[in-house]
This record gives sequence, structure tokens and C-alpha cells, in this order.
Amino acid sequence: MSAITLFGILDVLGTFVFGLSGAMVAIRRQLDIFGILVLAAATGVAGGIVRDLLLGDTPPAVFSTLRPLSAVCAAAVCAFFFGALIDRLKRPVMLFDAIGLGVFAVAGCEKALAHGLAAPGAILLGVITAIGGGMLRDMMATEVPRVLREEVYALAALAGAAIYVIALRLGLTETIAASAGVLLAVALRIASVRFGWQLPRAPGS
Amino acid sequence: MSAITLFGILDVLGTFVFGLSGAMVAIRRQLDIFGILVLAAATGVAGGIVRDLLLGDTPPAVFSTLRPLSAVCAAAVCAFFFGALIDRLKRPVMLFDAIGLGVFAVAGCEKALAHGLAAPGAILLGVITAIGGGMLRDMMATEVPRVLREEVYALAALAGAAIYVIALRLGLTETIAASAGVLLAVALRIASVRFGWQLPRAPGS
Amino acid sequence: MSAITLFGILDVLGTFVFGLSGAMVAIRRQLDIFGILVLAAATGVAGGIVRDLLLGDTPPAVFSTLRPLSAVCAAAVCAFFFGALIDRLKRPVMLFDAIGLGVFAVAGCEKALAHGLAAPGAILLGVITAIGGGMLRDMMATEVPRVLREEVYALAALAGAAIYVIALRLGLTETIAASAGVLLAVALRIASVRFGWQLPRAPGS
Repeated sequence: MSAITLFGILDVLGTFVFGLSGAMVAIRRQLDIFGILVLAAATGVAGGIVRDLLLGDTPPAVFSTLRPLSAVCAAAVCAFFFGALIDRLKRPVMLFDAIGLGVFAVAGCEKALAHGLAAPGAILLGVITAIGGGMLRDMMATEVPRVLREEVYALAALAGAAIYVIALRLGLTETIAASAGVLLAVALRIASVRFGWQLPRAPGS
Repeated sequence: MSAITLFGILDVLGTFVFGLSGAMVAIRRQLDIFGILVLAAATGVAGGIVRDLLLGDTPPAVFSTLRPLSAVCAAAVCAFFFGALIDRLKRPVMLFDAIGLGVFAVAGCEKALAHGLAAPGAILLGVITAIGGGMLRDMMATEVPRVLREEVYALAALAGAAIYVIALRLGLTETIAASAGVLLAVALRIASVRFGWQLPRAPGS
Repeated sequence: MSAITLFGILDVLGTFVFGLSGAMVAIRRQLDIFGILVLAAATGVAGGIVRDLLLGDTPPAVFSTLRPLSAVCAAAVCAFFFGALIDRLKRPVMLFDAIGLGVFAVAGCEKALAHGLAAPGAILLGVITAIGGGMLRDMMATEVPRVLREEVYALAALAGAAIYVIALRLGLTETIAASAGVLLAVALRIASVRFGWQLPRAPGS
């Protein structure tokens, strides 16, 4: 399977799972089916929209292809009917979410490099792509964004994007570099949840 | 009266009433006159700004014409002096708000089509234009956006934009298609408030 | 020292102090070091990013130069280790914050004029540049944005940007006009805090 196809699949999967997380928050807040759909869409596609806006690539891709919107609609419907089940499946959802985080970080970074950004800017853009949707979800639900509170989350995206850029610099192929980036982000995120890793807080806070 | 003139009037009216709703939230939160102005402006023009950003039409129109800003300033002043009266006028305000919703949905959709977006993307952009200002208003006031909570709100915008596109596809004139879109959105919104229509919530939530 | 150099220094200083204010909010919320960094970055650079997006100047400058990011990283580190000290230094922090407000207002206005916007639009853009970062900071922390609540804050930015434009119209040099704008904004902001100036609230609210 070519890297592009694999990436396409992971990208849709990432959008779906991010959509799922938005839909679950909406259900917890007792929103109706359309509110669930709106929050799923905001979570699933906002990161990519912000990425495209920042790169001046307008209108953003999500407005001209049906795949991301189909993915978030499917996520909203799944959450609507199987919310209780999904709640119990915490582990797989967290896994998919970690995959989405890694894929979006690397994909954002890749697109930024293609638009001529230097490494630091491209990595920053990758992180924004990866965490943007979740931030909007939590701000709409008036919660302090999980990315600010949770164990190693934005840091996992940062590490994945950075490894991707470093691997490219070392002359590795696009496929290998991207895989390394996604794998590192996923591994870091899962390990941090599994082992309860925490970053230090300010002394006396 | 030509459709463009009518639309121009409705557009300013929509901006004014959206501004009014922002100003009323600000007053309820006991903000000062400038806070009222900022929240009125954010509510009245944010949807159009986001629309123009997404279409790559920068700088957004609101920065080069004085009409929208004049409308929100007028709204802030009205709310400041006649807040108590407006509170009692709930019904007319809700009517104007519904008109604003419909006009912004159709206008956003129209502009997106003119920029070459296909139907689904254009409808999505219409919805974002219509609900963007209110979402920002509620997020700034740290409330869960009304669009997520209220009876048929974003759905009315979606229906209006969709009918507009369908009518154009059927070969109807711009004027008729736009009128149909606005009317449907307004009718849906008002009927949902009047009859207390609710969309289903997730089972067991 | 040329105006450009002076402006460059003030700009970095403004970014640093805005970053500091974001970091202090993050510490108060007991976020970890990366959360502190994210909130410092959001506060320090969001205004400039929004300005560049609105002017169609993509990718925004912050993605291609390391200075602003270095400034917010430094701010996050300072806040992390010396949070208690900074808390006691309220007065200097407020002074720097006022300087940042004035510099960002004038710099946003200047860039907007250079992009061909007329005076009202340019002033509006200056205000958005100056208050954007703080608004995002407070929305992420789920607080009603300080710009909506505090004494003469956005109004100081507005006055600074307006004086800058008026001075240019009167034929004064760029340097003098910019200095006048920054000084007025700083003076207004500090005086309003010092003397507890308040703008009127709506009657009976």
C-alpha cells in the first residue's frame, strides 16, 4: 500500500475519531442531534481548516471534498446510537485519538514544508493542526481545553512533527519519516496515559 | 426594488439585530459601554469575517466599508439606552434574528458559489456565516453556544442555504432562489420557537 | 536609534509581556509546563496571526521568524520559575502589558495602512491585533475576556491607533506618529488603572 493511500485512510480515521470525541462531549452536555453533529464537525475538521487558512490555501480542502464531512457525520451518528458502548470502549477510542493526533501533526507539518516554511514554523503548524480541533471542542463546551490539562498531549504532537522533519533532513524517504513521526506521537501519547506521566507544574502553584 | 438593494437592506438589518443580541448579552453581564460595543461588533460581523477568510477574500469586506460597523454601533447604543424595552420586545427581536440568520446563510452560500465552491461546501460555508457571530458571542461570554443548545437554529440556516442551492439548480432566478432560502430559514426558526420543536437527544443521555 | 529598531525591540517586549500574562493565567490554573507554554504562545502571538490572516499575508510572520516564539518561550520559563515574584511585581507587569497593547495597536494599524486599508478599517485592525491575544487567553481559560471587563483597555488601543492615523494625516513623520500612538495608549491604560476610571454601564443593569 502506498504511503499516500495509507495516509488518506489514517486521515479519514483521525477525522472520524476526533469527530467521535466531539460528539461524546456533546452527548454528555445533553445537546440534540444537530448540536452533536456541529460539535463533531468542529472537532474533526477545525484543525485542518486553521492549517489551510494559515498557509493561505483557501478555500480549505474540507469545503471541496466530501470525505471529512462524511467522516464526522458517521462519527456523530455512531456516538448518538452507541454512546454508552463507546464510553465503555475508552481504550480503543484513546488509541484512535492518539493516531489522529499523530497523523494530523505530521500531515500539517508536511503541508507546511511543501508551502516553503522552514522547520520550526512547519513543526508549529503541525502542532496547531493536531490540537486545533480539540481546543475548539473544549472552548465551545466552555471547558479548559484538554490539551492544556492532560498528560503529554500537545507535546506528543510536537515530538511527532519534529521527528518527521529530522528524519527528512537525514535523507530518509517521505514514507519512513512520516511513519516514524506518527508512531512516535502515538507511542508517547499512549505511554503517557498508560503510565500517568505528568509534566512538572510550577513550584508552589 | 432590485434583489441586490433588498439584500443590502436585509444584510444591514441582520448585522444590526445580531449586534443587538451581542449587546444584550453584554448588558446582562454588566459590561461597560465599550464591552457592549465589542461584543455587539463580534456578534454582528464575525460570521462575515470568517466567511471571507475561508474564501481567501482578504481583507474582509467589513474592513473597507463603514455600513456593518455603523450597524453594530447603532445596535450597541440602542441596547445601552433601551435595554429594558428590548427585553420586553422579545418577539420582534427573535424575528429579526431569524431574518439575520436566513440572510447570512444565503449570502454566505451565494458568495461561496461565486468563488467556485461546489454545492456541499457552499452550503456549509453559508451555515458557518450564519452561526459564526453568535458562536463567538457565547464563547466570549463563556456560555455554551446557543447554536448548540437551542431549538432548530443551525438547522434552519442549513435548510435555507440548501433550498437556495436547489432552487438555483432548478433554473429559478437568483432573486427567487434567495427569497425562498431566506423565507424557509426564517419560517423554520420561528416555527421551532413557537411550537417548541426539539431535535432528538441521544438515548439515555 | 531608528524607529524600526525601536519598534522591533518594543514588539519583542510586547510579545514577551503578553506571553508572561498568558503564562501567569496558566500557572494560576495549575497547568503543567507545556500548558503554560501553549497559553503563553497563544497570548503572545495570536493577535499578530489574526492580523496577518485578515490582511491575507500568509503564512503569518510568526511561522517564519524565531523571535516571537523565543520571546514567549522565555516568558513561559520566567513565569514557571519566578511566578511568585512576578505576582508581587504587578505594577511593572501592568506597565509592560500597556506597552505591548500600544505597540501592537500601532503596528497592526501601520501594516493595515500599508496593505491599502482606509483609516477606519486600519484602526479596527489595530485594535484586533492588540486585544486578540488576550481574548484567546481568557477564552481558553474559560474566563470572560478581560478586554470586555477591565477599565479602558480596548479603548486605549483604539485611541492609540486613531492618534497614529491622525498624526500621519497631519503630515507628521512615521516615527513621531507611531510614538504618539503608543504613548497615548500606554498613558490612557495606566491612568485608567491608577485612577480607577470606568466607562458607564447600561442604566439599571
